[in-house]
Amino acid sequence: MKAAIVGVTGYTGIELIRLIHLHPQLSIGTLHSHSMHKNSISDIFPHLDQFSEQEVGPFDAEIIMAKNDLVFFATPSGICKDLVEVFVENNFPVIDLSGDLRLKETQDYQSWYHKTPVAKSIVDKALYALPEITQVQGNLLSNPGCYATAAILSLAPLVANKLIELDSIILDGKSGLSGAGKQLSDSTHYVSAAENMTMYKLNQHQHIPEILQSLQEMDKALETIQFTTSLIPVKRGIFMTLYVKIKEDISWSEIQTAYKQAYDDRPFVRLQPSNSLPELRQVLGTNFCDIGFGLNEKNRVLTVISVIDNLVKGAAGQAIQNFNLWAGLDETTGLMQAPIFP
Amino acid sequence: MKAAIVGVTGYTGIELIRLIHLHPQLSIGTLHSHSMHKNSISDIFPHLDQFSEQEVGPFDAEIIMAKNDLVFFATPSGICKDLVEVFVENNFPVIDLSGDLRLKETQDYQSWYHKTPVAKSIVDKALYALPEITQVQGNLLSNPGCYATAAILSLAPLVANKLIELDSIILDGKSGLSGAGKQLSDSTHYVSAAENMTMYKLNQHQHIPEILQSLQEMDKALETIQFTTSLIPVKRGIFMTLYVKIKEDISWSEIQTAYKQAYDDRPFVRLQPSNSLPELRQVLGTNFCDIGFGLNEKNRVLTVISVIDNLVKGAAGQAIQNFNLWAGLDETTGLMQAPIFP
Amino acid sequence: MKAAIVGVTGYTGIELIRLIHLHPQLSIGTLHSHSMHKNSISDIFPHLDQFSEQEVGPFDAEIIMAKNDLVFFATPSGICKDLVEVFVENNFPVIDLSGDLRLKETQDYQSWYHKTPVAKSIVDKALYALPEITQVQGNLLSNPGCYATAAILSLAPLVANKLIELDSIILDGKSGLSGAGKQLSDSTHYVSAAENMTMYKLNQHQHIPEILQSLQEMDKALETIQFTTSLIPVKRGIFMTLYVKIKEDISWSEIQTAYKQAYDDRPFVRLQPSNSLPELRQVLGTNFCDIGFGLNEKNRVLTVISVIDNLVKGAAGQAIQNFNLWAGLDETTGLMQAPIFP
Amino acid sequence: MKAAIVGVTGYTGIELIRLIHLHPQLSIGTLHSHSMHKNSISDIFPHLDQFSEQEVGPFDAEIIMAKNDLVFFATPSGICKDLVEVFVENNFPVIDLSGDLRLKETQDYQSWYHKTPVAKSIVDKALYALPEITQVQGNLLSNPGCYATAAILSLAPLVANKLIELDSIILDGKSGLSGAGKQLSDSTHYVSAAENMTMYKLNQHQHIPEILQSLQEMDKALETIQFTTSLIPVKRGIFMTLYVKIKEDISWSEIQTAYKQAYDDRPFVRLQPSNSLPELRQVLGTNFCDIGFGLNEKNRVLTVISVIDNLVKGAAGQAIQNFNLWAGLDETTGLMQAPIFP
Repeated sequence: MKAAIVGVTGYTGIELIRLIHLHPQLSIGTLHSHSMHKNSISDIFPHLDQFSEQEVGPFDAEIIMAKNDLVFFATPSGICKDLVEVFVENNFPVIDLSGDLRLKETQDYQSWYHKTPVAKSIVDKALYALPEITQVQGNLLSNPGCYATAAILSLAPLVANKLIELDSIILDGKSGLSGAGKQLSDSTHYVSAAENMTMYKLNQHQHIPEILQSLQEMDKALETIQFTTSLIPVKRGIFMTLYVKIKEDISWSEIQTAYKQAYDDRPFVRLQPSNSLPELRQVLGTNFCDIGFGLNEKNRVLTVISVIDNLVKGAAGQAIQNFNLWAGLDETTGLMQAPIFP
Repeated sequence: MKAAIVGVTGYTGIELIRLIHLHPQLSIGTLHSHSMHKNSISDIFPHLDQFSEQEVGPFDAEIIMAKNDLVFFATPSGICKDLVEVFVENNFPVIDLSGDLRLKETQDYQSWYHKTPVAKSIVDKALYALPEITQVQGNLLSNPGCYATAAILSLAPLVANKLIELDSIILDGKSGLSGAGKQLSDSTHYVSAAENMTMYKLNQHQHIPEILQSLQEMDKALETIQFTTSLIPVKRGIFMTLYVKIKEDISWSEIQTAYKQAYDDRPFVRLQPSNSLPELRQVLGTNFCDIGFGLNEKNRVLTVISVIDNLVKGAAGQAIQNFNLWAGLDETTGLMQAPIFP
Repeated sequence: MKAAIVGVTGYTGIELIRLIHLHPQLSIGTLHSHSMHKNSISDIFPHLDQFSEQEVGPFDAEIIMAKNDLVFFATPSGICKDLVEVFVENNFPVIDLSGDLRLKETQDYQSWYHKTPVAKSIVDKALYALPEITQVQGNLLSNPGCYATAAILSLAPLVANKLIELDSIILDGKSGLSGAGKQLSDSTHYVSAAENMTMYKLNQHQHIPEILQSLQEMDKALETIQFTTSLIPVKRGIFMTLYVKIKEDISWSEIQTAYKQAYDDRPFVRLQPSNSLPELRQVLGTNFCDIGFGLNEKNRVLTVISVIDNLVKGAAGQAIQNFNLWAGLDETTGLMQAPIFP
Repeated sequence: MKAAIVGVTGYTGIELIRLIHLHPQLSIGTLHSHSMHKNSISDIFPHLDQFSEQEVGPFDAEIIMAKNDLVFFATPSGICKDLVEVFVENNFPVIDLSGDLRLKETQDYQSWYHKTPVAKSIVDKALYALPEITQVQGNLLSNPGCYATAAILSLAPLVANKLIELDSIILDGKSGLSGAGKQLSDSTHYVSAAENMTMYKLNQHQHIPEILQSLQEMDKALETIQFTTSLIPVKRGIFMTLYVKIKEDISWSEIQTAYKQAYDDRPFVRLQPSNSLPELRQVLGTNFCDIGFGLNEKNRVLTVISVIDNLVKGAAGQAIQNFNLWAGLDETTGLMQAPIFP
């Protein structure tokens, strides 16, 4: 099968090329960019010499549908919503990696993204495709956000099994700089970011509503979460720390059981041994989400650490995983490489 | 006045030399090390050429007392406790930067440091000297831990004014690698630490009891805290995130007032403008603790960020600040340099 | 085919596991370590969970020969030389990644490595296997050093075609910290290495004799080279800068032709477009050596930049490339993944 | 005395504020910026809270001359040249940190900076003020470039004493990212720069002509140099490597003597012990240039390493040093702080 990539010059677009090259049943059909058009993608990115000599052209829905079996939108939020209609009308498969199709309530999109939402009829057709949580189906898949992926995977077994006090959820997310995208800003300049740490968008991050939406499907009683995001000086990776109070009558073994039941048959979630916490680097370059946890008996606070590569499980890798499931393939197809380590 | 430094080859010892050089009324008397003895400290550290040609000799209490007005212990925990008695007997001024004299309950030291504590009679004489919290007095000063300094300064106005639900305190501390000291380990190897983040000592960090001890003096009802520590790939700095629930009837302006009353006349605490959060880098090389906070109205969670340089306000700088107050000087003497920025 | 890895817990051992997992015709037979013995390699390295559950045992030549088709020595220099004899006697295939079998003059090994050399009869059987330079053959392959690989690939077209003044060769090599190996030292501590650069082993680096030995086979008139090595704060990678004077009558196009003739059919050397220089990051995680060059017409100094991943083309990847050629496979088998980028 | 800073929001402007705060006889008069005007510099840079509450206004020559004793231009190249005339006419003291007044041949400025040069009559009045090389005098001082400072200090004793083969000079400079200035670009994005190294402006760097101009005053026979520049992932610092052939009849002790004679009485040049090479980090935050060297007896290549902080000795610190000498003060006034280490 062949895939088009729209927004191929961004970080998730480049990562899709890397991952598709490793895939035995998917190849690149056409490449599209708003800003750069070249005879070859490797003229823009020399590291891709010998991997893709595809031309990079402007967006063209007709060409995309004529020459590909599906299209990945690796664009920033606010692009896909304006381009997706023709694909929906033609029932042409779309996997959108941006935030445009994630929120079922269109006014939420307006409030959190400060942009005009896509038509309600389109967002109703889209599936929020976090495959460890939801069964993948249909031709319009909305790939979850990077922070949201780590947060939901940490919380799902606790919320779904009603093990925690719902008003106690604190999510403290740390991201590498690639999470901020390729656009230039003072805060992503090397001199600003190295030897530094900053918290941003306090109580205003646009992944809050998608986390809530996903968890409220597990327990409608959940009203809100505390969720913050910081930048740490690494290129890739999300280190998500969850603090939550366990209900009084819940035992340590019930918690362990809940995680095991949720993930023991899911190849991309690797539960760490008891009271062992994962390091960020142990997932770099891969589609894994490694989760570890420890309980403080004195105050019943459970600490859960989940680590992902924001460009893989948090973006391009999860998109390939969704493709695999959509195509009826094993979900690990083309995705089982060992981490780049050390 | 002249000061001896014991443990001068460690990170806090080196930092004491840098800061004492900037001090108009303090100079170095004698330098002492367990492991390295040289004719000149600059034979060990070429960066100190032209700053200190002092000999580095073994520990010798007689020499220290004969040639100095006070002694700084810049040693790892477990050293000062075995050497300090002679200074106490002679009422010779000591500022200990290690954890040896911080915990009033000697069994706490045993439990958290896994070492034999100093005699109860000695720890009773020691003052836990966090000068924004306690008035400095006496000849035996125990300098607070780096994480503890950031944590207590964040929490003190809230606890002392009874503004928060005491069972809701979550402290999430991130430290640069110099916080782990100079001893070699797999986790401090560049290849392990760069492009990585790790949480360590979950619910077992030895700064927990000193934070509790300090806060319980403000409100005896406080039973426990949730406190975790992670390493981020920076050389210096602590980025402390506090999440805490504000009591139902407490307003945003009461919170602001509490911080202002606590710190408006304290030169080393810089409160950030409303809803502005400090960056780690804005305090590097200095004795400042910059604090910012924002309230989530939906769940009454107050997020407080405090940033310090772990080697300055978290160690050597605070020791000089304590020296200043002990000596009757202005507490900022020799400590008002602008941060190294960018 | 199955391979044993001796020294599996070092950086090149771990990298061999990653690369072998990607190889369609090679798998791991047995794993061996001097210091760590575990039921599973993933007990030591959690990032390998789901990739290798092999036991890690002590070195045992009998087991290695019984259960494998070849053995990789991923040990520091000084180990293989003492263990290799039994494999040579049995004509069991060995690929040694250390420096033990590289120098044909055993007194050179003594002088540069400060260790007793292997028997001359053994080193005579070993092939210095830099496959772009020498045809791989025989059952005893000595994998080149990381700096040496970059240096020789930069220089070979110039020396072999007698284009340069031989006494003008300056090689300025920069390496990431993984090049220094996993052993702990002050200089590899994060706090020492970050925000720093150091030159080390001035005129004493043990890769000098192997570069000379290799180049002198192309032109016996070459007497010496200037070669220096520095550490830069990256985890992986070698950035090799070569400065050399072109002979007076040599034209720019002759230089370009020499490189093209040498490498146009070699899949792992990617010549950059004219006057374009490669970045370190464009080869990370891969077996490529990217080479770019520019001529200063004023002084006839040719600047050549070559970049490699020291753990791949500089170690484990080149070992797999050598395995492929030894086994009669296409040399790229299992090695054509796109770089981890950005 | 009071100084104005034009271009205060750039990296060298911020650094001037830090250094002036440490100076006992210089303070800030007025601050000027093209792009940002605020009631207080600390509204732009929170790290300066308590250090400078100066207003930041537009450039205004009348105000500058009315309220200050001298003006620092901390602007990018191309600004000072268009603004400086009025100060020259009024004989008002100017220290220009940009490249605008460095090159005596105005067509060189045109060729290397690709901008219209300042009037020849003005550049003729300017002194290229590298105080270890030239006696500071006059009211129009041109502060040397960062790379040029390190290069000239490395080479001066060799060229002035005719110890080397003039056609053998190779200068390989590495700089931290602050050297590229604050403007945003793909290459200074954290994700591009971390874990990377790049060479740029091969044979085209604008510091080449100022190095040549300075060295040719020592030996007119010098025709050209080989000079290249690379970015390494550090925030601050230049690591300059010089390779040069010593004349046949020159001994090691003559080289040592030349450096000692040149610098033994210069407080900011610290010669390293014989065959010991300086690390980048040993000068960070300071005005030192540390120089070490080692001779390869086999090929008579002398390797010289010089390290500086590009924002201090390479910019703002050298400007203060020049101010000191201009004002008749000891050149170290306000500049003798120990490096930030580790």
